[in-house]
Amino acid sequence: MAKTMAVNAGSSSLKFQLLEMPAEQVIAQGVIERIGMDDAIVTIKYGAEINAERLVGHSEDDEHITLSKDGKGKKYENVTAIKNHQQAINFMLQKLTDLGIIKDFNEITGVGHRVVAGGEWFNHSVVVTDEVLAKIDRLADYAPLHNPANAMGIRAFQKLLPDALSVAVFDTSFHQTMPDENFLYALPYEYYTRYGARKYGAHGTSHRYVASRAAELLGKDLKSLKLITLHLGAGASITAIKDGKSLDTSMGFSPLAGVAMATRSGDVDASLVYYIQEREGLTNEEMLNILNKKSGLLGISTISSDMRDLLDVQDTNEHANMAIRIFINRVVKYVGQYVAEMGGVDAIVFTAGIGENSVPVRKMIIDKLNYFGVKLDEEKNNVRGKEVEISTNDSKVKALLIPTNEELMIARDVESLKA
Amino acid sequence: MAKTMAVNAGSSSLKFQLLEMPAEQVIAQGVIERIGMDDAIVTIKYGAEINAERLVGHSEDDEHITLSKDGKGKKYENVTAIKNHQQAINFMLQKLTDLGIIKDFNEITGVGHRVVAGGEWFNHSVVVTDEVLAKIDRLADYAPLHNPANAMGIRAFQKLLPDALSVAVFDTSFHQTMPDENFLYALPYEYYTRYGARKYGAHGTSHRYVASRAAELLGKDLKSLKLITLHLGAGASITAIKDGKSLDTSMGFSPLAGVAMATRSGDVDASLVYYIQEREGLTNEEMLNILNKKSGLLGISTISSDMRDLLDVQDTNEHANMAIRIFINRVVKYVGQYVAEMGGVDAIVFTAGIGENSVPVRKMIIDKLNYFGVKLDEEKNNVRGKEVEISTNDSKVKALLIPTNEELMIARDVESLKA
Repeated sequence: MAKTMAVNAGSSSLKFQLLEMPAEQVIAQGVIERIGMDDAIVTIKYGAEINAERLVGHSEDDEHITLSKDGKGKKYENVTAIKNHQQAINFMLQKLTDLGIIKDFNEITGVGHRVVAGGEWFNHSVVVTDEVLAKIDRLADYAPLHNPANAMGIRAFQKLLPDALSVAVFDTSFHQTMPDENFLYALPYEYYTRYGARKYGAHGTSHRYVASRAAELLGKDLKSLKLITLHLGAGASITAIKDGKSLDTSMGFSPLAGVAMATRSGDVDASLVYYIQEREGLTNEEMLNILNKKSGLLGISTISSDMRDLLDVQDTNEHANMAIRIFINRVVKYVGQYVAEMGGVDAIVFTAGIGENSVPVRKMIIDKLNYFGVKLDEEKNNVRGKEVEISTNDSKVKALLIPTNEELMIARDVESLKA
Repeated sequence: MAKTMAVNAGSSSLKFQLLEMPAEQVIAQGVIERIGMDDAIVTIKYGAEINAERLVGHSEDDEHITLSKDGKGKKYENVTAIKNHQQAINFMLQKLTDLGIIKDFNEITGVGHRVVAGGEWFNHSVVVTDEVLAKIDRLADYAPLHNPANAMGIRAFQKLLPDALSVAVFDTSFHQTMPDENFLYALPYEYYTRYGARKYGAHGTSHRYVASRAAELLGKDLKSLKLITLHLGAGASITAIKDGKSLDTSMGFSPLAGVAMATRSGDVDASLVYYIQEREGLTNEEMLNILNKKSGLLGISTISSDMRDLLDVQDTNEHANMAIRIFINRVVKYVGQYVAEMGGVDAIVFTAGIGENSVPVRKMIIDKLNYFGVKLDEEKNNVRGKEVEISTNDSKVKALLIPTNEELMIARDVESLKA
């Protein structure tokens, strides 16, 4: 059977998922962290219950392996020196073989790589050629922290698995269908032609995945639906999807724009940014760092960037309460924008960390959207990380909870490019 | 009868309107431009038809005076050296006397001054005291081009009309009712306490005026209505008004934020601003200047900041067409936000230059808002600058055209503070 690997390479980490395709079954998943250090950490989960957290006791064969209660789910963990991505991938592939997950490297016939910035060059996933790689390199301007790492991952896999089909899946490509009135800023037009100054959006693979699942759950043709997908994690973006295509999305040229996030400000008056920068005596880079790393839920609450922490103390901590209200407020306003733009909405879809797991956040958002015809079923909403409709049966607009699965979407793209 | 003057003092200009109060009748209006120059221009319109453009022939008594066809409307025009605001006001008051509009300076018992920035100190209009003036001076940080000029106008009038009640009417005060989730940015909270980094909004006097007129036209209590007021001029802002109070508004810390405007960008990803600034090698000030003066309709169209010019060529000029579509798009999205926030809307009100005069812009906006229950009556919409309902009789949400009248609102505030 053909196995496909979905890869997300960061500057010092590498996440992967190995799937049996086209069965779409996850065989193993893992992460290598602290690449470049003497104490890099390798984690691989595998076996029947891949997501089992109920791991008990060590394997007798290998001190690095823990087992789930029923012995079917397994987790390999090790701390070791790993110099670079090449070594990390080599170690991982070797370990997959040692653990009996694959018999031979060649079983892996396709590798799909998440790439953050695809600019205007990529409006769908593509087989990686030299030209594609060169473009990914050049697009590093738009994602200086991500694209170089993504490209590094691609090159390392190509060396170790030269026969596997190498595919690039872009975070931005789904949003390339936005019309110009949505992707252009009201700036001098020459900045668009000269620098590609426009909205690219992000989380495209996630929005695309949950939209397609939403259509399946609703038993409707995706092309006939008006959807608003809420990817609410540490990074958060909201997308209006009409006729199966991204019509508009809340992130902008960069992931800084849109709703308030864990540590990102979301939309802010540019005049105010300069006003603060000058009074604080900051460089552009320092100010951008504050907007990206010290703002959002963390900035307002002053205590945590984690929605769970804020919800825990919202009744007693005024700032936590304020941060939650601001988050809800921005999400509701984006939904309103997109209802206006699409002239209606059939379903609102929650996904990603907060969207999948926060019962109260979903409730607060939907309660503020009652006017648009969406009604929460509190009982159905009392769930985490499951694919489920959370609106009442008579709700005119449906609300859905759909756990995202970018890895599966990447594997599917690899599969479709094999044909 | 008591006369009240409404004043809008800029750095090199001074606009005024003289009203008979409480009759609310305009007796004279005018402007002094190029203050500080040897060729300053003084214009005063007065007489029965104060807005008459049909001026024909010169007065026999005074070469500076032209008359309307029926002889009732008059316009005084002169070019003369005017050193400063004090001199400008003195010249104007003297001329009002010479022209027989007032008999004595003392007839003017109240002067209301537009002040751009009121910060968090002023949530309504106030009688100007030394303390108020000191605060207006200190608020110059928020409106460096405007507040110093406004304060200069106040001081000059106080010297020349020491017995008249001096009142400050702030552009921002109407928006002081916004709740914290709308006025706070998702930035480190300390910037709010340290620098007053928050949303203040603008055009408050205009939004307040048209909201109160809308309630009268609809025969409803303003406090029972959900209104969205669209002040669409060279500067443009949109306000959600609930229970008679500003709930949210599109301009932000500064007038740069919100919808795309004549030359202002409106909302833009702060990362992109820095990205462009660095590539273009601009200072903060230069970049801000581009965002304020070279962006918006002008930036996108590359040909004009004037909506009329763009509408004229929209069928043949792709960039003009694009600029119009972006403008409409941003307005529609803000309306959607505010419908979501208020959980509905009873009426949408158009005002200011574009809002009052552009038949096609109103049509394009309302046509995109049909989903919310607003339906345009094209015949009723075929009008400029008149107070009129432009939605169909069966339109669930009403659309109104209401010419703004900030001067009247200022005069009313003076009147109410006399009591």
